[in-house]
Amino acid sequence: MKRLELIGLEGIGEVRGGDSVGALICDACSRQNFGLLDADVLVVAQKIVSKAEGRTICLDDVQPSARAIELAEQLDKEPALVEVILRESREIVRMGGRALIVETHHGFICANAGVDQSNVGLRQVALLPKDPDGSARAIRNEIQRRTGKEPAVIISDSFGRPWRVGTVDVAVGVSGLKSIKDERGMSDRYGYQLKAAVAAVADEIAAAAELVMGKRDGVPVVIVRGCEIDKENGSVRELLRPEAEDLFRHF
Amino acid sequence: MKRLELIGLEGIGEVRGGDSVGALICDACSRQNFGLLDADVLVVAQKIVSKAEGRTICLDDVQPSARAIELAEQLDKEPALVEVILRESREIVRMGGRALIVETHHGFICANAGVDQSNVGLRQVALLPKDPDGSARAIRNEIQRRTGKEPAVIISDSFGRPWRVGTVDVAVGVSGLKSIKDERGMSDRYGYQLKAAVAAVADEIAAAAELVMGKRDGVPVVIVRGCEIDKENGSVRELLRPEAEDLFRHF
Repeated sequence: MKRLELIGLEGIGEVRGGDSVGALICDACSRQNFGLLDADVLVVAQKIVSKAEGRTICLDDVQPSARAIELAEQLDKEPALVEVILRESREIVRMGGRALIVETHHGFICANAGVDQSNVGLRQVALLPKDPDGSARAIRNEIQRRTGKEPAVIISDSFGRPWRVGTVDVAVGVSGLKSIKDERGMSDRYGYQLKAAVAAVADEIAAAAELVMGKRDGVPVVIVRGCEIDKENGSVRELLRPEAEDLFRHF
Repeated sequence: MKRLELIGLEGIGEVRGGDSVGALICDACSRQNFGLLDADVLVVAQKIVSKAEGRTICLDDVQPSARAIELAEQLDKEPALVEVILRESREIVRMGGRALIVETHHGFICANAGVDQSNVGLRQVALLPKDPDGSARAIRNEIQRRTGKEPAVIISDSFGRPWRVGTVDVAVGVSGLKSIKDERGMSDRYGYQLKAAVAAVADEIAAAAELVMGKRDGVPVVIVRGCEIDKENGSVRELLRPEAEDLFRHF
């Protein structure tokens, strides 16, 4: 029977600015005699990538603009936090209640531009990596250099969704696999030509990994083994729907 | 290290109206000497549940209304198909291009009310189960009756998302587990009180299972083993965001 396994990589420890996430992963694997395979997919929590890249800010060091102060009042958020979110955003997509949904400079539509206060230290916030595909590639290159193996790498973050309660992890950066599996035009078992058969594989892998990571468990890396992926080099941009084709963008 | 395993259950075969999905699962397991555990989660593709419950319609038997004919023209879809979608819908949420996004009678917001033409036979469409939590419960009860084991059951379907390309599988029916994991108010490792820590666990499990099911592979049941779930009896309704709290519902 077809099997897929997810293994939480323990022992990564606290990540600091300047650390190499790829090196930390290799060290944790060798301490536990765990050998990576070329066919593995590594899912790495955005939080440790951001920390390693120094993408953290202390809110006490942020001078909020007049606009941030005004929005902060409406949203009942801290002005310095709103300032950081605005700096990370290309556009505000929707505001309501305490929610601020924006498009980031990368093109992600998500709450608070992915700026996150959990698991980074008090008064600190973590920003998304500047070039998440590049971050994934750097991790992959370092693993390849050290072990000779080339697993694919997905950087994941927890995003909310319209209409449904709760977050689901999605891919924010990708290296070494195609993010989508497009079977449009192929036939099903009855000869019906599939019309809507594009699966967001990288997002599904990220969602699966969250089940092992948890929010408070400190398991920031999950090895996914046995997943059929297309090793063609992909990008998280494959997952971003063009603005003109989106029905929930402008109102 | 924390491990989670997904096992595709083969040998379910073609499902027909009147079949018991729970019985088919038990038979497939015993033919392969596979023992289910109380702690397992079974993810069952909506398609086989709908077939077993006779929730399929031949488009040639559908008389489209004037409204369906008009919308079908705008959407470049078949009038009979639009008629079936409208019957399954409480409200149209958004239309554009060839996309018809509705709220179903259950409260799901999705394309085409979940009405699907793939893997059901030419000219046939499959509708979502009428009471998907009840369908999940019936599968669970039948497995319990036959094996004495009580794995949780999730019925899954592939839904598109705003802003992102491709579908990700989500839960449309749930029995024997809580659909969300709410850690709001708990503290992270630095003492920061988590604010947005609600994970849509049932959706993440469904997404993970899709990696094993595929769209054309005919693996309609996946056993998820090693997943930490809350066995309190939940409902897919936990995953439906109340209309008043949704920013992407009305425009």
